[in-house]
Amino acid sequence: MSQSTNGGEFNPELLLQSLPYIQQYHQKIILIKYGGNAMVNEELKGQVIKDIAFMKYVGMKPVIMHGGGPEITGMMEKLGHETKFINGLRVTDELTMEITEMVLTGKVAKDLVGRLSRYGIKSIGISGQDGGLIKARQKKPELGFVGDVVEINPELVFDLLEKNYVPVISSIGCDEKGKRYNINADEAAGKMAVALGAAVQLLLTDVQGVMKEEGTQKVVIPELCPKEIKHYIEKGVITGGMIPKVNCCVESVANGVRRAHIIDGRESHSLLFEIFSDSSKGTTISE
Amino acid sequence: MSQSTNGGEFNPELLLQSLPYIQQYHQKIILIKYGGNAMVNEELKGQVIKDIAFMKYVGMKPVIMHGGGPEITGMMEKLGHETKFINGLRVTDELTMEITEMVLTGKVAKDLVGRLSRYGIKSIGISGQDGGLIKARQKKPELGFVGDVVEINPELVFDLLEKNYVPVISSIGCDEKGKRYNINADEAAGKMAVALGAAVQLLLTDVQGVMKEEGTQKVVIPELCPKEIKHYIEKGVITGGMIPKVNCCVESVANGVRRAHIIDGRESHSLLFEIFSDSSKGTTISE
Amino acid sequence: MSQSTNGGEFNPELLLQSLPYIQQYHQKIILIKYGGNAMVNEELKGQVIKDIAFMKYVGMKPVIMHGGGPEITGMMEKLGHETKFINGLRVTDELTMEITEMVLTGKVAKDLVGRLSRYGIKSIGISGQDGGLIKARQKKPELGFVGDVVEINPELVFDLLEKNYVPVISSIGCDEKGKRYNINADEAAGKMAVALGAAVQLLLTDVQGVMKEEGTQKVVIPELCPKEIKHYIEKGVITGGMIPKVNCCVESVANGVRRAHIIDGRESHSLLFEIFSDSSKGTTISE
Amino acid sequence: MSQSTNGGEFNPELLLQSLPYIQQYHQKIILIKYGGNAMVNEELKGQVIKDIAFMKYVGMKPVIMHGGGPEITGMMEKLGHETKFINGLRVTDELTMEITEMVLTGKVAKDLVGRLSRYGIKSIGISGQDGGLIKARQKKPELGFVGDVVEINPELVFDLLEKNYVPVISSIGCDEKGKRYNINADEAAGKMAVALGAAVQLLLTDVQGVMKEEGTQKVVIPELCPKEIKHYIEKGVITGGMIPKVNCCVESVANGVRRAHIIDGRESHSLLFEIFSDSSKGTTISE
Amino acid sequence: MSQSTNGGEFNPELLLQSLPYIQQYHQKIILIKYGGNAMVNEELKGQVIKDIAFMKYVGMKPVIMHGGGPEITGMMEKLGHETKFINGLRVTDELTMEITEMVLTGKVAKDLVGRLSRYGIKSIGISGQDGGLIKARQKKPELGFVGDVVEINPELVFDLLEKNYVPVISSIGCDEKGKRYNINADEAAGKMAVALGAAVQLLLTDVQGVMKEEGTQKVVIPELCPKEIKHYIEKGVITGGMIPKVNCCVESVANGVRRAHIIDGRESHSLLFEIFSDSSKGTTISE
Amino acid sequence: MSQSTNGGEFNPELLLQSLPYIQQYHQKIILIKYGGNAMVNEELKGQVIKDIAFMKYVGMKPVIMHGGGPEITGMMEKLGHETKFINGLRVTDELTMEITEMVLTGKVAKDLVGRLSRYGIKSIGISGQDGGLIKARQKKPELGFVGDVVEINPELVFDLLEKNYVPVISSIGCDEKGKRYNINADEAAGKMAVALGAAVQLLLTDVQGVMKEEGTQKVVIPELCPKEIKHYIEKGVITGGMIPKVNCCVESVANGVRRAHIIDGRESHSLLFEIFSDSSKGTTISE
Repeated sequence: MSQSTNGGEFNPELLLQSLPYIQQYHQKIILIKYGGNAMVNEELKGQVIKDIAFMKYVGMKPVIMHGGGPEITGMMEKLGHETKFINGLRVTDELTMEITEMVLTGKVAKDLVGRLSRYGIKSIGISGQDGGLIKARQKKPELGFVGDVVEINPELVFDLLEKNYVPVISSIGCDEKGKRYNINADEAAGKMAVALGAAVQLLLTDVQGVMKEEGTQKVVIPELCPKEIKHYIEKGVITGGMIPKVNCCVESVANGVRRAHIIDGRESHSLLFEIFSDSSKGTTISE
Repeated sequence: MSQSTNGGEFNPELLLQSLPYIQQYHQKIILIKYGGNAMVNEELKGQVIKDIAFMKYVGMKPVIMHGGGPEITGMMEKLGHETKFINGLRVTDELTMEITEMVLTGKVAKDLVGRLSRYGIKSIGISGQDGGLIKARQKKPELGFVGDVVEINPELVFDLLEKNYVPVISSIGCDEKGKRYNINADEAAGKMAVALGAAVQLLLTDVQGVMKEEGTQKVVIPELCPKEIKHYIEKGVITGGMIPKVNCCVESVANGVRRAHIIDGRESHSLLFEIFSDSSKGTTISE
Repeated sequence: MSQSTNGGEFNPELLLQSLPYIQQYHQKIILIKYGGNAMVNEELKGQVIKDIAFMKYVGMKPVIMHGGGPEITGMMEKLGHETKFINGLRVTDELTMEITEMVLTGKVAKDLVGRLSRYGIKSIGISGQDGGLIKARQKKPELGFVGDVVEINPELVFDLLEKNYVPVISSIGCDEKGKRYNINADEAAGKMAVALGAAVQLLLTDVQGVMKEEGTQKVVIPELCPKEIKHYIEKGVITGGMIPKVNCCVESVANGVRRAHIIDGRESHSLLFEIFSDSSKGTTISE
Repeated sequence: MSQSTNGGEFNPELLLQSLPYIQQYHQKIILIKYGGNAMVNEELKGQVIKDIAFMKYVGMKPVIMHGGGPEITGMMEKLGHETKFINGLRVTDELTMEITEMVLTGKVAKDLVGRLSRYGIKSIGISGQDGGLIKARQKKPELGFVGDVVEINPELVFDLLEKNYVPVISSIGCDEKGKRYNINADEAAGKMAVALGAAVQLLLTDVQGVMKEEGTQKVVIPELCPKEIKHYIEKGVITGGMIPKVNCCVESVANGVRRAHIIDGRESHSLLFEIFSDSSKGTTISE
Repeated sequence: MSQSTNGGEFNPELLLQSLPYIQQYHQKIILIKYGGNAMVNEELKGQVIKDIAFMKYVGMKPVIMHGGGPEITGMMEKLGHETKFINGLRVTDELTMEITEMVLTGKVAKDLVGRLSRYGIKSIGISGQDGGLIKARQKKPELGFVGDVVEINPELVFDLLEKNYVPVISSIGCDEKGKRYNINADEAAGKMAVALGAAVQLLLTDVQGVMKEEGTQKVVIPELCPKEIKHYIEKGVITGGMIPKVNCCVESVANGVRRAHIIDGRESHSLLFEIFSDSSKGTTISE
Repeated sequence: MSQSTNGGEFNPELLLQSLPYIQQYHQKIILIKYGGNAMVNEELKGQVIKDIAFMKYVGMKPVIMHGGGPEITGMMEKLGHETKFINGLRVTDELTMEITEMVLTGKVAKDLVGRLSRYGIKSIGISGQDGGLIKARQKKPELGFVGDVVEINPELVFDLLEKNYVPVISSIGCDEKGKRYNINADEAAGKMAVALGAAVQLLLTDVQGVMKEEGTQKVVIPELCPKEIKHYIEKGVITGGMIPKVNCCVESVANGVRRAHIIDGRESHSLLFEIFSDSSKGTTISE
């Protein structure tokens, strides 16, 4: 046995502090929406994967839903395909959709699968069309192949969990004619969490959490319930891109997910902080 | 019931002609190497998928191994990344490998999955790294990320067949450190057929079959055994790119695959001709 | 591979015309009431069995319920046992019942099982007393051992389907004291179709279908719903022995069977016409 | 609770005397060849069935192989079909075979199934063609449809035992073309016992057992080993129709059956004497 | 085969008298509360175990709940630990509880397991804390570790029955903090019978049954229904320690147990009399 | 979520140091021989149980074999039963054996089960006679009921592991007549580890490990192979009671156990040090 234990004496008491958390999530599904900087920065990527591998080994059932905006944009630029925006929303024409699918399922997901396999974890990259997983329809004609989730058919994910795989899901939906649509990964994550009966839903973002002003400073709001969220949105405390994120969390906790966390993917091991300690650093939303 | 039956009266006798073939391959694994023009031409693509859907519905277990040279080349060109060749072999640098994986698993495989799903068939795109399916190692350092199959671990494929999925496999292998390699799809198909105990291995190519000269004409050799193949290679009848294809078939039939077919993917429904009739149009290799 | 394909070139398009039908009945139970001329004429018998074997191989679950009036009458005559009739109904005394059971289960069913086995299909002959399948009671004392179905206990049939057998059921019921009764095979077929949740119920008869007069000709009514049937019976269009047949179909479609077909067993491959084409030749009853 | 216990006080000690025997055959297969007077006499028939029901309930796995010579002869006579004999062997022409099958599977087996069901026991009548159970070939052309067992395929019987049915097997075999043959039930029973790995094989006969002369009397030989049997045949002690019976037992015990018993079906409950007591009344053959 | 059958000729008719009883309790759970003299007297102990082994072998599912008052008292005396009583109830201090658990689970249960194993029966000793089987709470503070059943979680027992073990349960309960309580074995047996859906509940006692005076004699009341019991308690016919026993039976039959028997453990084979004959010797309580 | 994390900030890096160890023993059986001071000292007992609960939760399969010398001696004294020794070996008369069994299975094992259940872990106390687990025979007549292991039948343990229980095994064996014997727990642990195919065998002792003199000090030998052990025994470095311990370890590693550890049960969390770090504190024996 020669694994190097980087740093200090082994301290069994510190290890045992994780026991109550391990008990709490034993055999529970943890839905992780993975995106943003945590998916771009090489070191953070390594940490996220290690955190997920750890969850899996200690008896939880992580399921990953991922987006990949920066990679898609990067590939679009390399291909010289210009991105149009309508009211801040990317217009997804046929070629953009093709590139999106190729980058998400063929690059991002495969990269995650490859990294998990280095920890001896069986995982598999799937997208919404595999096994009819995510049924979608067009959001608005002018946005092209941008879709909304119509229905989740979780059979394939349960099949894979039963066989001990970690599913890595690209946020792409499919209509009945086989047309693929780009789905917002936060939305897909929330619906998937509900369909799977996940215990926890973790959204890795590029902010510290839901923020408010306290005096001259912006501070994280550590805990929120649906009522408070409604209030904060009305008061203009929660604004912009955070609104769909918190609303997706509200919908999840209203449909059986125990807690939803909006956390900072730029922080080291932010996943572990939420799952294995009480020192949550982001915002926890529960009923 | 209002499916249109394009063309003519229903003839039960013609339908029943397929019965002996359906019996013969009942619950048998049919490994199909899908590539070449049959994967580029839109109409042929539709036919191949329909043929495979048919096989699946009448009780066979098709497994698809695909390559995707033209799509990779196309994407490389769009990205302005030049392809180098050494002795006719494509040198696969890191970026080329990344593009290869992305195109094969994120575009080609997903497209096949989408088309099969329109026939109500559950299928799933996987590559050699999913579930540790294809272990590979570098072929030659100067070729970069081109690999040879070291070992097939078919557990994932059996898991999927048991759950009634049609596995669509991209011919990519993975070494123990998680490095991906581009694998020749013919080679991967042959090894996979053996590992799965397939009854039949079908190689869709862009030629009519194994050819020889008869008088002033080139004609297909309808049947070959390993001895004859050795003879024809020595005599210079079988040459060039056909040699690795026939050798891969020889290895398969030596390891339990009953028959291997080299067939013309440019012909309509060439798969059905091999499986549901005696009117084989390509070359059949058996012991 | 040397199965002779009697007649003409292999035509993949004609084969693929069957795909939508194969999809539609995938893993569905097809209840076939087999009787009449189709069970007497040697050539027709061969066709019916081949049709059923085909259905089984392409993924459907045929279940056969059979009668055997002519064979019973034949055996009665050979034994010099006279048949009495009351209002056109055969009086079944103890000896007649014994002969009936012996002929149906020991001759007719065994013959069907033997023929199916030649296609490599596992099948098994059972009657209503095996596994308590058909509970019956006496219809009228004056008719002797003629019974009505009281209850179907389909466990044995499901056991056999699960193990991939084609059940061949003789239409004999059994009361709690073990007394056997002759059951009308149409009635038994209908109740069995409902108990099994069959998708389709096919009654092979010696007429073309439900007929009506059109000008000076009798023509088949291709489709009927329960309301029309009621109307036609009241109008005297549907009469005599056809009334119980259509009523049995009405009851089946009212209890979950999607479609019931009254078809002509004297026509070649009439089963295939109903299941694999839109060129139905008999009468289809649905809600 | 009002079952009448005909006769005397309940004596727990007498009941417990059966415990060692019940232990010994727990979950073991008991192959019973049922024929002769025990199958004709109504009272004896009731006893045999009750004995078998008892075995089943206390945890053994009885399997019945039956013949039915007298019933066949009776039916032949009623049908005015004359029986020819060559050297004492019945010549089985096509009609005779048809009658044989009909009587055995449609009358004798169904009767046994019906009687067992009255004890709440699930049973099912099968013959050698069901599920390809008994493969046979013609014995001698001049005997017509008389066959020898070529191979037993016991899968169907194991399927039925697993589902808790008592299989009732008619001694009819089937060749690859579907032709049925009448098989000697003793021979079929022996081969079946071996194929099933039965612990015990019981042959119900119309004699007391294997007999020898002692002084002026004929007495049963209580125990025999293969060597003694060979000796007795050579000495002319065992003769005639008993020779094939003992030889079939010799073959069984040579192939894994622990004990074979030749017992008197004319005696009340002779099955129970062999299985639940040391007071065997017939001849026990073991190695 | 050389098991000695102590006493007399084998009589198949006497054996077959047990058949209706064996049928009636086939695969049914029989809950036996074992205690009193039947657990102290060495010969009676042997008989009880043999009776239970017999039940198991003939297809019933016995479950044993046992107490062990005398053994506990004996051990307490040896340890010089005095027993205090409050209103006739033993005060269970911590040491008493420790001794109780040790004696019941480590001596009494293990002895039963050992005896059953000599009949080839797999059994296992468990108590209320194993697998969270019996949740209990303190009855009254002044009685110390005497508990009432709060809830039965029968999963462990079903697990063991499925694997063919005879569960031997010590009547000890456990609260959520892991504190053990001594539970009255009659009470535990009744609740367990209900939780398991037992068909029959047998209480072995040191009296003949529920008694009443008839003239100058005390006689057993053979049958009682809940109404009669209420009546007899009010009238003072049923008194003292018998009241909780009959009330526990009343509760059981009100909750699905078909019959509860209060029987005399001092009589030979009293279990068999209740289960295998109509000659019940104790009191049968049913609705 | 309000579990108190006693001590300091949550440090994800420290937690992740355990990942390689968790991977290494994923789904592996860890056989723990539990005895000595770690079983007497209340605080140490709490730590051992917590360590085992932790192992179980993170995906290992701990199996506990325990002795209980001090508790047995304590009970013997309380009962005033004197212990005799022959050459340092306790003579086990019938009463001593009874006390031994009662204390081990009824007190020690039940206490461990109770403690594990407080962590939500299903466990069950068994001894060598349950399910015929440990077959034993008398060691020497003069030692009375002291036994040697003859054979391990691990079926029951595998049954329990499959159902997710932690088996707690008392080191008692049983001969075919049901006689119980006291087995040395080290010996039983070693044989059990081999029979179960355990990955690791941990012996909790009251010494620091295998010791040798280094200068004027006694130091632990951290690693030993069988050859070195033989050498050290011959040289007199390993002596007395340590010899059977190391020999038991040698036998285990020769029969498939990867590593055996002799560790100090008096040290806090010595189990975790061996399993979750490289900072082993005792002696590791491997081939």
